[in-house]
Amino acid sequence: MTGRRRVAILGSTGSIGTQALDVIGAHPERFEVVGLAAGRNEDLLREQARRFGARIATTIADGAEGLLRVAVESEPEILLAATDGSVAFEAVFAAVERGIDVAVANKELIVSAGALLVESAQRSGARLLPVDSEHSAIFQCLAGEERESIAAIVLTASGGPFWRTSREEMEHADLKAALAHPTWQMGTKNTIDSATMMNKGLEVIEASRLFGFPGDQIRIVVHPQSIAHGFVLFTDGSVKSQLAAPDMRLPIGYALAYPGRLDSSAPAGDVLAMLGAKQGEVALRYDFEAPDPVRFPCVALAYEALARGGTAPAVLSAANEVAVDAFVQGKIAFGKISMVIERTMEQTRPAPATLEGVRSADRGARVNAQAIVEGIERSSNR
Amino acid sequence: MTGRRRVAILGSTGSIGTQALDVIGAHPERFEVVGLAAGRNEDLLREQARRFGARIATTIADGAEGLLRVAVESEPEILLAATDGSVAFEAVFAAVERGIDVAVANKELIVSAGALLVESAQRSGARLLPVDSEHSAIFQCLAGEERESIAAIVLTASGGPFWRTSREEMEHADLKAALAHPTWQMGTKNTIDSATMMNKGLEVIEASRLFGFPGDQIRIVVHPQSIAHGFVLFTDGSVKSQLAAPDMRLPIGYALAYPGRLDSSAPAGDVLAMLGAKQGEVALRYDFEAPDPVRFPCVALAYEALARGGTAPAVLSAANEVAVDAFVQGKIAFGKISMVIERTMEQTRPAPATLEGVRSADRGARVNAQAIVEGIERSSNR
Repeated sequence: MTGRRRVAILGSTGSIGTQALDVIGAHPERFEVVGLAAGRNEDLLREQARRFGARIATTIADGAEGLLRVAVESEPEILLAATDGSVAFEAVFAAVERGIDVAVANKELIVSAGALLVESAQRSGARLLPVDSEHSAIFQCLAGEERESIAAIVLTASGGPFWRTSREEMEHADLKAALAHPTWQMGTKNTIDSATMMNKGLEVIEASRLFGFPGDQIRIVVHPQSIAHGFVLFTDGSVKSQLAAPDMRLPIGYALAYPGRLDSSAPAGDVLAMLGAKQGEVALRYDFEAPDPVRFPCVALAYEALARGGTAPAVLSAANEVAVDAFVQGKIAFGKISMVIERTMEQTRPAPATLEGVRSADRGARVNAQAIVEGIERSSNR
Repeated sequence: MTGRRRVAILGSTGSIGTQALDVIGAHPERFEVVGLAAGRNEDLLREQARRFGARIATTIADGAEGLLRVAVESEPEILLAATDGSVAFEAVFAAVERGIDVAVANKELIVSAGALLVESAQRSGARLLPVDSEHSAIFQCLAGEERESIAAIVLTASGGPFWRTSREEMEHADLKAALAHPTWQMGTKNTIDSATMMNKGLEVIEASRLFGFPGDQIRIVVHPQSIAHGFVLFTDGSVKSQLAAPDMRLPIGYALAYPGRLDSSAPAGDVLAMLGAKQGEVALRYDFEAPDPVRFPCVALAYEALARGGTAPAVLSAANEVAVDAFVQGKIAFGKISMVIERTMEQTRPAPATLEGVRSADRGARVNAQAIVEGIERSSNR
């Protein structure tokens, strides 16, 4: 026993934050919660702080100083960055600069400012630990392997609700259809990203930042059962895969306990159950299919942004947020989401990805994307 | 470049030996062949020695001294133990005692004398590297993981030619049916072991020796496509798997190059191809099924031998050889193979697994098994 690991959480009342506290609550001998920050749900935050004995708890409304107190002054050994958007960027950077390990569940952070974050971590010795199930899978499969032995990494995709839908149907799919995700339970934004497969595009950029592979060594394969979360392909023709039930508490727990693993009383006696079989099933089937670039143009846009570098991924991510929001509000058709992103990327000049450059690109892209959405609205109302 | 790794091979003209030389021949910058020993195929041995410039080459007929020269005096950094039976036991032990790494492709060695071999390796610091595809898979999945995080390991089985055959049909299956293995090309003995699934039973014992897990942490799952070669189940509910085309050159190359990996120009650009898809296929399917203990009693006999310990695995292995031989010669029905083994285990007293104890148990078991075979022959001819 080397003492409990001190954990701080930015975004403790959200989906990832509450699941992280579930994991921590199940392993009181392993973890101590030292700081919590949340958005608007003050009651739940207070309840969490009381239950876990957090010394510092603050709402985002308290401003950047509050987030810094949680991320740094609470003296965590590991910070879980689970807020949405860019509100916590400074706090996370401050933690990384001080050598505090960060479990990264904030996609915008790693997509927009990942290169900077990785540089900072390399300087300070902080570890950046993936929380996304796909990146956790790759990270687990890379353990004990030499960099030069890796030929490529592969992220699996469920294919989302439209994997079997024709291009014509997708073009005017409604919100309800786009929200009908087959395997994962997620928020609206993430589920729409899954329908366009932009989630995989963003994950390709994330994987490139976290693991240091260029785009041409990162691939996608569609696996509707969502049990295999990633593959690493080796130069000798061998492949490693990580598999698990689609439960975010697993990758969260892996990041928090790294390099150890928690004992979660998984059904280890029952192999098929651990591979995803339901009670009594004696056979399992996994499928893997090549992704379809024609119906999912967002994937290619993400590879393009990764190749351009600089602030291009930040522009992609911001344009995507605006486009998804416009679709959810009924302003544009599903099929126009990728068009908004593509045009925004054309119209927003890329710049070096300094923290200020990223913020500025984010603002510029949102303005441009909004104008493109309005143009589409006008032309479709004519 | 740290110089070429010096390799010696016991059994260079057999299936594993020739495939190892294929691998070595494809990577002349990585390996140097310093010693070769083979059985009866002297012409091929001479040709191999000439082609690879081996300083020492000998046939098994030259006796124990020749094998020792290859295993030790040729000064290999790694010895590939790929002879059948027990002929090379002393030579392999001598190498391990001197701290020479051994790639173990000799099942009898690790099943019968594995506990001794592991002890010896622990004393000298020699590494024992698996060559079987299933054990290589487990070994690869254990890399970078802590022992206490492992809940269980799982060996995959193709199920063999009788996976879909009824118990009644199996009882009197003929040699041709038993040799019709669906995925792997192997010799007669190994293919019959696959039909009885004793191959998996022996592999459970091997896995226990190589990785130090008791029988109740080693499981079997049937996977007819033979692409996933093994799984490691972790305490946190996560699973890792190693996958590869069913080609023995992969695990052989992994053992020889460990901890690095060879660059074999695998089709890394094509994910599905690396996962086993044929040219042009865009979808793959893997199945996993629970094994059937009723039709494959040999599996339970192997677990039993592992649990008994001492020389019991040596008795199991020797009895199995006699029983398979009797089936191949038409002396006993397929369904009687397990009976011969079970009765031999009952009649042969287990002893501590010293090297002499193992040899003596092997001899005793063969005599007993032969007598049991003759008894079955007599009663069926009555």
